Amino acid sequence: MKAFYGDLKLGILGGGQLGRMLIQQAINYNVTVKILDPDREAPCRKLCDEFVVGSLSDYETVYNFGKKVDLLTIEIEKVNVDALEQLEKEGVLVYPQPRIIRLIQDKGLQKQFFKENNIPTAEFQVISSAQQLKESHIPFPYIQKLRRDGYDGKGVYKVIDESYLKNAFTAPCLIERWIDFEKEIGVIVARNESGEVKTFPLVEMEFNPQANLVEFLISPSTLPFEVHQEAAQIATKIAEDLKIVGLLAVEMFLDKHGKILVNELAPRPHNSGHQSIEGNVVSQFEQHLRAIFNQPLGDTACLNNAIMVNILGEAGYEGPAVYKGIEKILKCPGVYVHLYGKALTKPFRKMGHVTIVDADREKAIEKARFVQETLKVIS
Amino acid sequence: MKAFYGDLKLGILGGGQLGRMLIQQAINYNVTVKILDPDREAPCRKLCDEFVVGSLSDYETVYNFGKKVDLLTIEIEKVNVDALEQLEKEGVLVYPQPRIIRLIQDKGLQKQFFKENNIPTAEFQVISSAQQLKESHIPFPYIQKLRRDGYDGKGVYKVIDESYLKNAFTAPCLIERWIDFEKEIGVIVARNESGEVKTFPLVEMEFNPQANLVEFLISPSTLPFEVHQEAAQIATKIAEDLKIVGLLAVEMFLDKHGKILVNELAPRPHNSGHQSIEGNVVSQFEQHLRAIFNQPLGDTACLNNAIMVNILGEAGYEGPAVYKGIEKILKCPGVYVHLYGKALTKPFRKMGHVTIVDADREKAIEKARFVQETLKVIS
Repeated sequence: MKAFYGDLKLGILGGGQLGRMLIQQAINYNVTVKILDPDREAPCRKLCDEFVVGSLSDYETVYNFGKKVDLLTIEIEKVNVDALEQLEKEGVLVYPQPRIIRLIQDKGLQKQFFKENNIPTAEFQVISSAQQLKESHIPFPYIQKLRRDGYDGKGVYKVIDESYLKNAFTAPCLIERWIDFEKEIGVIVARNESGEVKTFPLVEMEFNPQANLVEFLISPSTLPFEVHQEAAQIATKIAEDLKIVGLLAVEMFLDKHGKILVNELAPRPHNSGHQSIEGNVVSQFEQHLRAIFNQPLGDTACLNNAIMVNILGEAGYEGPAVYKGIEKILKCPGVYVHLYGKALTKPFRKMGHVTIVDADREKAIEKARFVQETLKVIS
Repeated sequence: MKAFYGDLKLGILGGGQLGRMLIQQAINYNVTVKILDPDREAPCRKLCDEFVVGSLSDYETVYNFGKKVDLLTIEIEKVNVDALEQLEKEGVLVYPQPRIIRLIQDKGLQKQFFKENNIPTAEFQVISSAQQLKESHIPFPYIQKLRRDGYDGKGVYKVIDESYLKNAFTAPCLIERWIDFEKEIGVIVARNESGEVKTFPLVEMEFNPQANLVEFLISPSTLPFEVHQEAAQIATKIAEDLKIVGLLAVEMFLDKHGKILVNELAPRPHNSGHQSIEGNVVSQFEQHLRAIFNQPLGDTACLNNAIMVNILGEAGYEGPAVYKGIEKILKCPGVYVHLYGKALTKPFRKMGHVTIVDADREKAIEKARFVQETLKVIS
């Protein structure tokens, strides 16, 4: 591999906020960055050496883009893997490896991988017909998930009883036993080509039962040490079983009995790691770069309590974005604003995030609530 | 002023490393960034919405560039101030204000300002002829400084005795009593349009008497509280006397008697503030943006001991830069590398910097020495 600075051409498939924050970090390593994204207004459009507008699912487009770089990575899984496999054969470094992207693109294969490798996960069944769904061995209620292309809650359907079956997905899917979980938790792990593996400290999602949604992410988790240890062991095992090069976000549930179950994987920087920019010695973006450049992985220790709040487009507003209340939140010490450069807001669109850092965890949570109440993206 | 995100067009005069780090931070605020720099290979060339190649000292070039932005700032003082004053008259926001750039461009006016405002500084005399130099009232040894365009030690000449006069500068200059100082120290202060002023904690330069040069910068200084307090008061007074909008770096000497003397000002982000990226709650770049956007200034507290080492081109090498030893330093926890994206190295050219963060000050210093011995920019 070329030196990882100066003359190394790094290609990124996807030019959204994850690519944007990856570029912010890559600037320190002085690599040449090329981006492929279908949206000519994508957040990365003005921050890279070359911005190519094109489809991420089209073989020719991805192949031609990849031929012009030394090292190719992703910020979204939904890419043409056939092209990536061909590029890999022709000597382009593709990290994460195409076989891993292929596995993770298909929730059926992903679950199969968990089963074959003794990775704890909710009981499941892969379903290929309506008949098979009716005769499934998973008791109600269960979760139906499309095998492909689901994201941010899309492609997921809760089947509470038989009456829900008529609205079930008909595309290839899997069904999963309903987990009445205690907490959603996550570990981000990185592995470089030399086989070095490092996990970030466990994070947890704060759930608001009234609003029935994840309010924010807290780092580090205050769950018992055993949970930290076990979650880190699971994440490490997955990274090693996959032999992934790059970052892997491992989303998990902690059930009411204290058992950890792996929910899903993402082989790239992830929403549950944004707080690491200010909250940890190295950020997930720095770590991903170090992993794919085959450099020593950085220290992942937490510097402080850090809370991450997503900034979503307010319901009822669509159009040029206006960030109401931003001055008020900038007055709070330890509050860091990250806007993603999206010109237009839509209800629930991810427009940015805010990280709140405080040595006092309760104060950090208080500030996070203030940020949520105060900052509104309207139009 | 327009909202400071989205549709605000920010122009920066100069596209070097300071502009580059300013952009890295400005990305979080989603402003449109335009850069003017004479070098088409300048570090910012690929990181902004528009990169204009042109002279910073040419009236027409600066004026035309400035007419296309809402807010104009600088990352270098050597710019055409007449153009800036005209732009200001025509309603463009120019921060720092042109009158302040004009004052600081001329070391004679700068010293005069110190004197008129009772700001402690070394005794000096403004000199306009060889005759005047001969008859000066400052005793040997003294320092002769060109009034204009000196930087990084250029335009400075030490006059030890009469025999040195024959090689003295003949351009307009000032001479300054030689200060046998104990320490070089610095405070970065920011002021926004609303008049809010905040200082960063005092930093000190570690001097290597064998090599006769500044080895690195340490933040925060371990000098007594009274020195911190007095330095902060001086910096605050200067910012308020100037009514500057933006960042102001105040370089000072602490003499052998414990007296603080102001050496020079820079109305912009400064080399002595780079460690703030990792070492402080907000960085100098974030603070400059907040000041010129007239937002609440951020918390400047130190998060940790932070040491900044400049990465200079190794003597004897000129050409495409190779960063020898970088893998070794990436292995140290708390070591952050910032390369400036300069393709070619030259002896002593600033190619990047490294910040070392550690809760143990002595360990941080040890690591900084390791970084200095290990990382070499060759060709």
